[in-house]
Amino acid sequence: MDKYSADAEVFHKQSFGTPLVWPPRFGLLIVDFVRGFTDPDVFGGYNTAEAAQNTVAVLQTFRAQQLPVVFTRIVFADDASDANVFSEKVPAMLALTETHPDSQVVDILAPIKGELVLNKTVPSAFFGTNLAPYYALHGVRSVVICGATTSGCVRASAVDAMSHGLKPIIVSDCVGDRVQSAHEASLRDMDMKYCSVITAQELLAHLASN
Amino acid sequence: MDKYSADAEVFHKQSFGTPLVWPPRFGLLIVDFVRGFTDPDVFGGYNTAEAAQNTVAVLQTFRAQQLPVVFTRIVFADDASDANVFSEKVPAMLALTETHPDSQVVDILAPIKGELVLNKTVPSAFFGTNLAPYYALHGVRSVVICGATTSGCVRASAVDAMSHGLKPIIVSDCVGDRVQSAHEASLRDMDMKYCSVITAQELLAHLASN
Amino acid sequence: MDKYSADAEVFHKQSFGTPLVWPPRFGLLIVDFVRGFTDPDVFGGYNTAEAAQNTVAVLQTFRAQQLPVVFTRIVFADDASDANVFSEKVPAMLALTETHPDSQVVDILAPIKGELVLNKTVPSAFFGTNLAPYYALHGVRSVVICGATTSGCVRASAVDAMSHGLKPIIVSDCVGDRVQSAHEASLRDMDMKYCSVITAQELLAHLASN
Amino acid sequence: MDKYSADAEVFHKQSFGTPLVWPPRFGLLIVDFVRGFTDPDVFGGYNTAEAAQNTVAVLQTFRAQQLPVVFTRIVFADDASDANVFSEKVPAMLALTETHPDSQVVDILAPIKGELVLNKTVPSAFFGTNLAPYYALHGVRSVVICGATTSGCVRASAVDAMSHGLKPIIVSDCVGDRVQSAHEASLRDMDMKYCSVITAQELLAHLASN
Repeated sequence: MDKYSADAEVFHKQSFGTPLVWPPRFGLLIVDFVRGFTDPDVFGGYNTAEAAQNTVAVLQTFRAQQLPVVFTRIVFADDASDANVFSEKVPAMLALTETHPDSQVVDILAPIKGELVLNKTVPSAFFGTNLAPYYALHGVRSVVICGATTSGCVRASAVDAMSHGLKPIIVSDCVGDRVQSAHEASLRDMDMKYCSVITAQELLAHLASN
Repeated sequence: MDKYSADAEVFHKQSFGTPLVWPPRFGLLIVDFVRGFTDPDVFGGYNTAEAAQNTVAVLQTFRAQQLPVVFTRIVFADDASDANVFSEKVPAMLALTETHPDSQVVDILAPIKGELVLNKTVPSAFFGTNLAPYYALHGVRSVVICGATTSGCVRASAVDAMSHGLKPIIVSDCVGDRVQSAHEASLRDMDMKYCSVITAQELLAHLASN
Repeated sequence: MDKYSADAEVFHKQSFGTPLVWPPRFGLLIVDFVRGFTDPDVFGGYNTAEAAQNTVAVLQTFRAQQLPVVFTRIVFADDASDANVFSEKVPAMLALTETHPDSQVVDILAPIKGELVLNKTVPSAFFGTNLAPYYALHGVRSVVICGATTSGCVRASAVDAMSHGLKPIIVSDCVGDRVQSAHEASLRDMDMKYCSVITAQELLAHLASN
Repeated sequence: MDKYSADAEVFHKQSFGTPLVWPPRFGLLIVDFVRGFTDPDVFGGYNTAEAAQNTVAVLQTFRAQQLPVVFTRIVFADDASDANVFSEKVPAMLALTETHPDSQVVDILAPIKGELVLNKTVPSAFFGTNLAPYYALHGVRSVVICGATTSGCVRASAVDAMSHGLKPIIVSDCVGDRVQSAHEASLRDMDMKYCSVITAQELLAHLASN
C-alpha cells in the first residue's frame, strides 16, 4: 500500500470526504484570474494560464443560463494605505493597483456589464467583501469556484464558502497554482474536508441536465 | 536541483516568504487540542498527540507572563440543530457535543479560570466567534498558534488571523495533523504566504528576551 | 404640519422607506426573549412582556409551516472570561450566565428539539455567531424578527440582516423595549432605512396566503 | 419628573451608561462626510453640514498627532451590479457611484496621501470592509467617530466598533443627521448602551493631555 492509499484510509475511517448535496441556485466565483496570476513572470506559473483557458467554457455556460457570476481581483491602494499582513509577507503584491495591467481580469474572461467584480487584499474572496451577502440576496446556495491559486486564494475562498453555509464546488482543471505540489496537496485537502472537487466536463454535464 | 528547491525559487522570485515583524502583545491560540483530535481512533493520528505534548511548555510560558490564552473546541449541538456543510463533509464530527469526552481539551492543557474557551463548528477559530474582538480588546497583535490539524483548523485560523490584521506565528512542533504529507505541505504554504513558522524553542527564546 | 410629518417629508424626498420584496423561504428570529428581558426588575420594562406574549402565535405559525426558527440569548461565561465592551457599558449583563434563570428563553416561547439556540455577547444576533450561514444553508432569504429590545439587539440584528443580503421584517407588536421613546424612534428608523415593519396580523395573513 | 428623567432612571437602575475606559492608540473614523450627505437636497439636512465643519479641528489634531485616520464613502458600482437590500430600501443611493460629485468627501475634510478611504454599500463602516483589520494592524483600540448620519451609518458603525472589541467615542457635535429627532434619540441610545458620547472640545482636551 503506497503512501496516499494509507492517507486515504485514515480519512475514510474518520468519515472525511463524504459527498455534498448541491442545492440550486448555482453561482460562479472566478478568483483572481488577472494577468499577473497567469503570468509566470509575475504571480503565475505551473498551470495557471491553462486553468484560466479552461474556465472560458464554464463562464459561457453560467452566462447562457443567466446564473450569477462574480470575479475577484487583488487590488491595493495607489498610496499603499491599505498595506496589510499579506503584503508584508508578499511585498510584490502592492504593485497590484486599480489600474495596473497585472490587476486586470484576463481578456478571455473579461467581465461584462452586470457581473460583480470585487476588489480584495486578502486571500479569501469572502473576507472584507460583500460576497456572502451578494449570494444570499441572489439565492445562490452552491458556489462553483475557478481561479488562482489553488493553494492560496482558491482554497481560502472555498473554506470560507463552506463556513458561510454555501456548498463549494472546485473545478479541478479550472484552478491553477504556481507550484504543482501545492496545487495537488490542496486539491486533496479540499476534496477530503470542505468541497466537492469535479472536472469542468462533469460540471457542464450537471448544469446541462438541470 | 530537487523539486522543493525549484518550488522555493519560484516563491522567492515572486517575493513570497518575507519575514513578519511581531508587535506585542502576544496572545496564544490553542486550536482543537481536544481528546478526539489527539486520538488516532477518532480524529487524530500522525503527530497530533506529540504536538499537544510539546504545547505544554508554551502554555506554561504564556501563563507565567500573564499573556492572553484562548482555546477552541469543535462542539455541535446535542440535537444537531447546527449541523452545517462541514458536518455534511465529515459526519462523524456531529458526535463532538458539549459534554462528549472527545470534545474536552486534553488534560495536560486543561484551561484554567479566566482563559477563554470558544466553541466552533467550522475550521477557523475566528469564523462565527468573538476571537478577533477578544484580541482587539486585550491588545493582542501577534498570535501564536498551536493545535490540530495543521492542514485544517490551524491553517484556516492562521489565514484568518492574517486577514484580521494579526501576525500569525505557527509553532511547527506544536501543530499536528493526522497525515504527514498534509502537515508538511501546509507548513510550507503558511511559511511562504501567511505566517511566521518557528519552533517552540525559538518562540520561548524570543519570549524570554522580551 | 407637525414635526413627524416634516421628518416624513424629508425621508420621502430622499427615497427612504421604499417597500421591500420578500423572497421565500421565511425564517423566524426571536431575539433575547429570555426571562431577564421581559422582567422590568432585570432588563425588561415598558412593552417587553407583552411583545413576548404576542410572539406566541407567530412562533406557532412558523412551526406549523416547518420554517426555520432561531432563538438568541445573551450569555456570558461563568468566569467572565468573555467580558467585553458591551459588558463594560452595562455591567449587570455579566450575570446572564448559561444556567442563570434570567438567561432562559421565556416558557411561553421555549425552544423545541431541532430549533437553533444561539448564545451571543453583543447586540446583533449575526455578529460572532453562525446565524447568517445557518440561513444560507437552509435557504432563508426573508427574516421575520421578534424580540427585545427594539432599540438594542433587535435593531442591531435588523441592520445586520440587511447587510447580510436578507430581507428583515420587523413585527411591530412582537418587539419590545424598556423605554417607549426608544422603541418608537427605532421602529421609525428601521421602517425608513432598513426593514419592512408590519403587525403580527399582517404577517400571519401573508404566511397564510402562501 | 419628566419623561426623559423617567427613562434615565430605568437605564440607571439596569446599569446602562457606565463610562468606558479608552486605551490608546486612538483612531479617527469619519463616516460618509461626502457632499451628498451634507447637502439637504441630496441625503443631508438638519445639522449634517455643521457637523462636518466641526470635524475639521478634530481631523487636524489627529493629523498633528500622526494617529490613524479612516474615511468611508457609500459607493455603488456604475452598473449597479452590487445593488443590495439597502439600495432597495433607499433607491436614490445607487446614484452614489465612484466618480459622482455627491460621493466625494467634502473639500474641508479631503483625505491626504496615506489616509485610508473605504468604499461601502451598507450602513456600518466595518461590514464588508477591512476596517477592523486595519485598526488591529495599526494598534488602534479606541475609535473616535464623526460623520453622518447619527441614526444611520454612524450608529451602525458604533455598534460594530463595540462588537469588534474597540471603544467607540462619538463626538456629539461632529455627527449629523437629516432629522433632529432621530439624531437625538440615537445619541441617547449610544450613550446608554454602546459608546462614550463627548463634545469635540472634550475630545481635544483629552488628546492634548496625552
